[in-house]
Amino acid sequence: MNETMMFEKVFRDPIHHDIQVEHPIILELINSKEFQRLRRIKQLGTTSLIFHTAEHSRFGHSLGVYEITRQILNFFTRQYPKDLLGDYGWDDTERLVTLCAALLHDVGHGPYSHTFESIFKTNHELLTIDIITNEETEINQILKKVSSTFPFEVASVIQKNYPNQQVVQLISSQIDADRMDYLLRDAYFTGTEYGTFDLSRILRVIRPHKDGITFNASGMHAVEDYIVSRYQMYMQVYFHPVSRGMEVILDKLLKRAKELYLIRPNYFEKSSPLMVPFLKNNFNLEDYLDLDDGVLTTSFHMWSKSYDPVLSDLAKRFLNRKPFKSVAYTDETKKELDLMRELIEQQGYNTDYYTAEQSSFDLPYDFYKPSKENNKTQIELIQPDGSLIELSRTSDLVASLAGENKGDQRFYFPSEMLAIKSDTYTLFEDDMETFNNMIQNGAIKKTKEVNTHDN
Amino acid sequence: MNETMMFEKVFRDPIHHDIQVEHPIILELINSKEFQRLRRIKQLGTTSLIFHTAEHSRFGHSLGVYEITRQILNFFTRQYPKDLLGDYGWDDTERLVTLCAALLHDVGHGPYSHTFESIFKTNHELLTIDIITNEETEINQILKKVSSTFPFEVASVIQKNYPNQQVVQLISSQIDADRMDYLLRDAYFTGTEYGTFDLSRILRVIRPHKDGITFNASGMHAVEDYIVSRYQMYMQVYFHPVSRGMEVILDKLLKRAKELYLIRPNYFEKSSPLMVPFLKNNFNLEDYLDLDDGVLTTSFHMWSKSYDPVLSDLAKRFLNRKPFKSVAYTDETKKELDLMRELIEQQGYNTDYYTAEQSSFDLPYDFYKPSKENNKTQIELIQPDGSLIELSRTSDLVASLAGENKGDQRFYFPSEMLAIKSDTYTLFEDDMETFNNMIQNGAIKKTKEVNTHDN
Amino acid sequence: MNETMMFEKVFRDPIHHDIQVEHPIILELINSKEFQRLRRIKQLGTTSLIFHTAEHSRFGHSLGVYEITRQILNFFTRQYPKDLLGDYGWDDTERLVTLCAALLHDVGHGPYSHTFESIFKTNHELLTIDIITNEETEINQILKKVSSTFPFEVASVIQKNYPNQQVVQLISSQIDADRMDYLLRDAYFTGTEYGTFDLSRILRVIRPHKDGITFNASGMHAVEDYIVSRYQMYMQVYFHPVSRGMEVILDKLLKRAKELYLIRPNYFEKSSPLMVPFLKNNFNLEDYLDLDDGVLTTSFHMWSKSYDPVLSDLAKRFLNRKPFKSVAYTDETKKELDLMRELIEQQGYNTDYYTAEQSSFDLPYDFYKPSKENNKTQIELIQPDGSLIELSRTSDLVASLAGENKGDQRFYFPSEMLAIKSDTYTLFEDDMETFNNMIQNGAIKKTKEVNTHDN
Amino acid sequence: MNETMMFEKVFRDPIHHDIQVEHPIILELINSKEFQRLRRIKQLGTTSLIFHTAEHSRFGHSLGVYEITRQILNFFTRQYPKDLLGDYGWDDTERLVTLCAALLHDVGHGPYSHTFESIFKTNHELLTIDIITNEETEINQILKKVSSTFPFEVASVIQKNYPNQQVVQLISSQIDADRMDYLLRDAYFTGTEYGTFDLSRILRVIRPHKDGITFNASGMHAVEDYIVSRYQMYMQVYFHPVSRGMEVILDKLLKRAKELYLIRPNYFEKSSPLMVPFLKNNFNLEDYLDLDDGVLTTSFHMWSKSYDPVLSDLAKRFLNRKPFKSVAYTDETKKELDLMRELIEQQGYNTDYYTAEQSSFDLPYDFYKPSKENNKTQIELIQPDGSLIELSRTSDLVASLAGENKGDQRFYFPSEMLAIKSDTYTLFEDDMETFNNMIQNGAIKKTKEVNTHDN
Repeated sequence: MNETMMFEKVFRDPIHHDIQVEHPIILELINSKEFQRLRRIKQLGTTSLIFHTAEHSRFGHSLGVYEITRQILNFFTRQYPKDLLGDYGWDDTERLVTLCAALLHDVGHGPYSHTFESIFKTNHELLTIDIITNEETEINQILKKVSSTFPFEVASVIQKNYPNQQVVQLISSQIDADRMDYLLRDAYFTGTEYGTFDLSRILRVIRPHKDGITFNASGMHAVEDYIVSRYQMYMQVYFHPVSRGMEVILDKLLKRAKELYLIRPNYFEKSSPLMVPFLKNNFNLEDYLDLDDGVLTTSFHMWSKSYDPVLSDLAKRFLNRKPFKSVAYTDETKKELDLMRELIEQQGYNTDYYTAEQSSFDLPYDFYKPSKENNKTQIELIQPDGSLIELSRTSDLVASLAGENKGDQRFYFPSEMLAIKSDTYTLFEDDMETFNNMIQNGAIKKTKEVNTHDN
Repeated sequence: MNETMMFEKVFRDPIHHDIQVEHPIILELINSKEFQRLRRIKQLGTTSLIFHTAEHSRFGHSLGVYEITRQILNFFTRQYPKDLLGDYGWDDTERLVTLCAALLHDVGHGPYSHTFESIFKTNHELLTIDIITNEETEINQILKKVSSTFPFEVASVIQKNYPNQQVVQLISSQIDADRMDYLLRDAYFTGTEYGTFDLSRILRVIRPHKDGITFNASGMHAVEDYIVSRYQMYMQVYFHPVSRGMEVILDKLLKRAKELYLIRPNYFEKSSPLMVPFLKNNFNLEDYLDLDDGVLTTSFHMWSKSYDPVLSDLAKRFLNRKPFKSVAYTDETKKELDLMRELIEQQGYNTDYYTAEQSSFDLPYDFYKPSKENNKTQIELIQPDGSLIELSRTSDLVASLAGENKGDQRFYFPSEMLAIKSDTYTLFEDDMETFNNMIQNGAIKKTKEVNTHDN
Repeated sequence: MNETMMFEKVFRDPIHHDIQVEHPIILELINSKEFQRLRRIKQLGTTSLIFHTAEHSRFGHSLGVYEITRQILNFFTRQYPKDLLGDYGWDDTERLVTLCAALLHDVGHGPYSHTFESIFKTNHELLTIDIITNEETEINQILKKVSSTFPFEVASVIQKNYPNQQVVQLISSQIDADRMDYLLRDAYFTGTEYGTFDLSRILRVIRPHKDGITFNASGMHAVEDYIVSRYQMYMQVYFHPVSRGMEVILDKLLKRAKELYLIRPNYFEKSSPLMVPFLKNNFNLEDYLDLDDGVLTTSFHMWSKSYDPVLSDLAKRFLNRKPFKSVAYTDETKKELDLMRELIEQQGYNTDYYTAEQSSFDLPYDFYKPSKENNKTQIELIQPDGSLIELSRTSDLVASLAGENKGDQRFYFPSEMLAIKSDTYTLFEDDMETFNNMIQNGAIKKTKEVNTHDN
Repeated sequence: MNETMMFEKVFRDPIHHDIQVEHPIILELINSKEFQRLRRIKQLGTTSLIFHTAEHSRFGHSLGVYEITRQILNFFTRQYPKDLLGDYGWDDTERLVTLCAALLHDVGHGPYSHTFESIFKTNHELLTIDIITNEETEINQILKKVSSTFPFEVASVIQKNYPNQQVVQLISSQIDADRMDYLLRDAYFTGTEYGTFDLSRILRVIRPHKDGITFNASGMHAVEDYIVSRYQMYMQVYFHPVSRGMEVILDKLLKRAKELYLIRPNYFEKSSPLMVPFLKNNFNLEDYLDLDDGVLTTSFHMWSKSYDPVLSDLAKRFLNRKPFKSVAYTDETKKELDLMRELIEQQGYNTDYYTAEQSSFDLPYDFYKPSKENNKTQIELIQPDGSLIELSRTSDLVASLAGENKGDQRFYFPSEMLAIKSDTYTLFEDDMETFNNMIQNGAIKKTKEVNTHDN
């Protein structure tokens, strides 16, 4: 009697219970060194410093995107086969390219991507493509076992120019496998319940369409619930002001290192050799693949003992989790920022490194927003008579979220500015008091109120 | 109207929903740099390489132990106050020392503790005491705000010689807050259901006793369930053969580095300066507190490019997760190991670094085992008439687990030894075949069977 | 040594884990016959015929409302005591009256309340008051142990004229313990995830105010999430068209019985004696307390064998779950209903019993709707400076739900009208086809479309 | 474009998330009146009076058994097809008969089966066969659409004499779909966590074998965990002493009715006509199908007003949940029961109706017990070399549970016997005191202790 019949390797996962690896190529990709590296890169970066259990890595998320995609394809194959439905059906010969793209779509991410990219001008999407198509990588070698052009096919799915837009939209659209996994996963690991939506219901109403992916109109509420969950996760988790306060520190710390490198490259070559290619803006793929969260924090350990007080102080603030504080401001109260910066400077802080303006809109998350130009990515429901209707036209809830920008603008500064204690009297205490009086209910007061207070 | 009334800061946590910080000292301890460092040390070390979502840190676990202790103390205060029950009751003036000890009991842990300690002769318990009592640490400074002797009181709880054994047993006994949290937490983050037991039920039947902690006999099944969950977690998670295969690699890698340091200290001073105090066996507390998981893996990145082929190869195996394979052996089949090592050596591997014997009993986990000498740590149930009965005397399930050692002995070796492919024919293929023939069903065959096969 | 210290009896509950009965009066009330009767009355009536696991009774819900109230009061006592905060604080001498009102608020419910009340003109709120204040009941006897006026105090909370509006609003307002429990409970037992919101978060931001209950502004998103969950439960569960199709049958069945009773009272006195007081519209409290779900379905068993074909047929449809089908209609298409009824009549159905117009707005659920007249029940958030802001003014999501009526109007008819099978050809098949052609996508077509189709 | 492709109807279920009805015959069976009747029969009978949320019906359980079976068959078809594995594989032409048997295996259950059957000599297994094969039922008519012999095939699976023992063991063996569903379902609805085991893991290691069902040895711990969960559910839920105390009352109540019927049949024909066929021991299938929980409790409502004080009192005790109390006894202390009964009799109770001896072994649940005679139903694991090993030979945990009988013997009596209050002094108080002195720690004292006390 034959022992095991078909290939099946299972990864236990709290979100999907089991992740079923059904093809040897997928297992080889998972075992590649470029993919294993994702274990050392946290999915949510500085958010784990606010939601202390959100320490999960991009590795698990990538497996999850693969698994959701796999489940969708099984459903499509069973319910909407191309041989019955033509262009409105799913062609299962696209299976492997879709699964590979799902698994690899984030493989180019590095440590603390958002901030790192803005300082060092890296781009995780281009790096993903590079990892897939560069002959030096294990991933490329594995993909080429399928065919010589296969790496490029996988890459083109991620670049969204793959011919079959059903495949593209499964991996990246307003309600793709990527977003579905990260919402559920981030909810699980932060311990919030906001990100919870009914995945299995969505997986029953999703369907292929002539030019992409749609949802049965009967599943409108399930899709609506997903959009609301997403909104709640943005407001509660991704836009968390304290998490952004840690990102500001990281941003300033890397900025300081980059500037100091120009003056004393030797220091960095000794203390943090793996960072050097980026500090000097001359890195290759191999350099990039050497990076992970631990490489950055180890550099910060070294920098915390550095000769430069700003570098050292910011490194300690990051390692020991001393976030900058913040106040919200509006277009109206923004004019007060100059005075605030002045007061901060008078306390001895270099405001280039110790203050920042930050808007939640700059973060790499988007609300659902239907768009006329780019109707490929909006969510469309298919009515019983076959016609399509865009989601926000049938859901008041979604319309209320899609209408305008949510989020806020905040001004960040050292938490010391808020601490006035009589036993630490300083010459500058009056300035501190002025600073504190400019703030009410977590936001900058309107000028009139400030004046009133001055009387 | 006054804004907030009492001090209360909440950490959201998936295991306990909320962790309620009810005292400013506790919050300060959490914010200390020594405690924040626990964020960078994984709770389960190499296990996260097998259960891919088990990436949670010792930080969350420490908060969890604090929270369970807090809930028990609330229950004791309400149901079993000392002023009503005398020695059989709980004296709530012990509250703060108990909570601090609960929070800090693991603060001396370092990266990959089990292996690191065995190579570098560190001891996380002594280091915990040091961090608490050493005047250089932030934690010591905070504790001294309570009183000059308070750090020593907290330390003595962890050292188990605090006068009130109720306090000691809450933190360390067969069913303490530490174990209760890690079982639930590890189950949640591995995604297994084995570790799940009914915490709230246990928190209703636990009670103080004259000389420690007992449980109401009516809660026998809840306690029994906890013991069975623990057993299942050991068998399924903590003793996982592949996880131990990664620990073997880590052990050999650190051992190699330590030996090479004697010959070429310069190499290590450049490539991994933070490791040097340990490689040369001359470290102080500050050196130790600089360590974390990222410092180790960053060193491994450097070592993976090293001149020494063994150091480089082992570093890559660890980073890229290429575990050693293993076979189980018994006292009877152990004698075959010499031949196996010989065959491995003939394939070109230095068996000092590429093979290991490992027993799951060596791991830092213990089954429940009642003991005559040390009756303080066994689990006792209190009968309605006030008499105590040891758990395994009333539960057949527990008796069956307590009776004898479970676990296994395994021999580890490079996975390449199992790969015989015709297209990679080598001179040594016969040896490989011999090696493979020595194995059946994941264990070493008994000699007779080997002989039979040889005919 | 004394055995148990304080009174504490625990009911295990999947929603709240444990329901802690902390006062002997509460336990006596639970054990009263009027309260035990709630075990025999399903919380969701006909909804259990659509969500097959939603078979939970009003007994568990009542315990749940008690438990949520108890948790809120514990929080209020700890964080907002009256002796510190005056009118803005909670006076814990109100504890017992609040807990009793929470426990008993639904004790007057009968079987399939909504439909039963509309046919037999009973009123569960008045009956609740009666059960509490009528000297014949066990509940009244128990409450009088507290004081002779205590039953009236409890009743006045439920009638909303108790002096302390904090107490009243905990039990009945837009976000009271009643609603919080039933949303979570109904979600658990239907197996939907829509009703899930973060109770513990809400229980941390709720607070007493001078004249009622408010929420900290910091908890806006938690409250918002509760409103959205409620909306989703209405749309997905409470307004389910098939469930309403079963209610229509129940309504028609009871109506038929009531009419037939006038003609042949003997039949009902023999077949369903416990129903007679209601059929003849002459019942007392004791009669009412004899009713439960089983008494109704047992009557239906008897009626299913009755001489009257309509009574018998409707009874069978209810017992064997053969719901009426429905189409949605609008004010515009409503005019087609006359033709539809005509076609149904031609198939031999008495349209008084076999058709119904039903609007989801008639159901006993309300959306959140802030109101100027009745500002006691709207949800208000308290800003850091102490001012109040009504929820929908700060939440776009809630505003979008509060703005206008959701729900639909449906026309119900026998499912046989949709079944045209060639093998059951009848003289009236043409009518059936006409009927079917009037329907498109689950709604009545607009006339033009009907015409178009006729061509 | 075609609307829906394949037949698929989904029932939402909290245990299995979705129950997928994949065949029109299955949907018709679910919609039959005999199956719908299961909605009115609680799965756990009197247990719902102790675990107040365990109000779920046999309807949901039957769907659940169907769903687990369906999932197993999908797995078998994919991994162990007969055309590859011969007798060791699964023949998917058996699919429909297996699914129908799974769905219908409990269709003959009536209200409070265990007690009802013991009094009225009904047998739910024979009634299941009757419902399936009797031409008068809707279920029989539906099954005959498949083929004229199909009802008998389905029946023979349930009777265990179907030729293919794989099919039989899926439906009834030590670890069949029936048990797997009810453990998970009962755990969910009682709110205990004891019954939770890892179903998905078991569904990955189950496999067909030549003559039945086995499990991969690699899944030993998952199977072990299932056995332990089962044990915990028996000890905590199914054998609950108070639940058995309610069953005793039910038993005595039905017994009393049966005896009174012989004397005054008229009373019962008027008050409870649907019970009469059973009281006079002359019922047919139609009579049986008229029964449900509500018919019984409605009869009890009527009986509670009866002329006979015992019938009336017992009916009220059942409806108002006044369980008998109990003490445990052993073979040694059993001899004290005569004295106890005497004391109870002296308080005015007829001990035929107000006392009972009951053993948990009499309940319809069995522990796992391997047996030499009937090796078809024991659990066997398949080793990598294809040999089978019985579970308890490889699991110490299971061996400890399988070794001997667990459970207890209890003596039931009116709770009034335990209430001695000075303010209700009666002539018989001395007897009451004697009675109470015979009890210690919930069990009957040994005689010596009683004597000691008498001194």
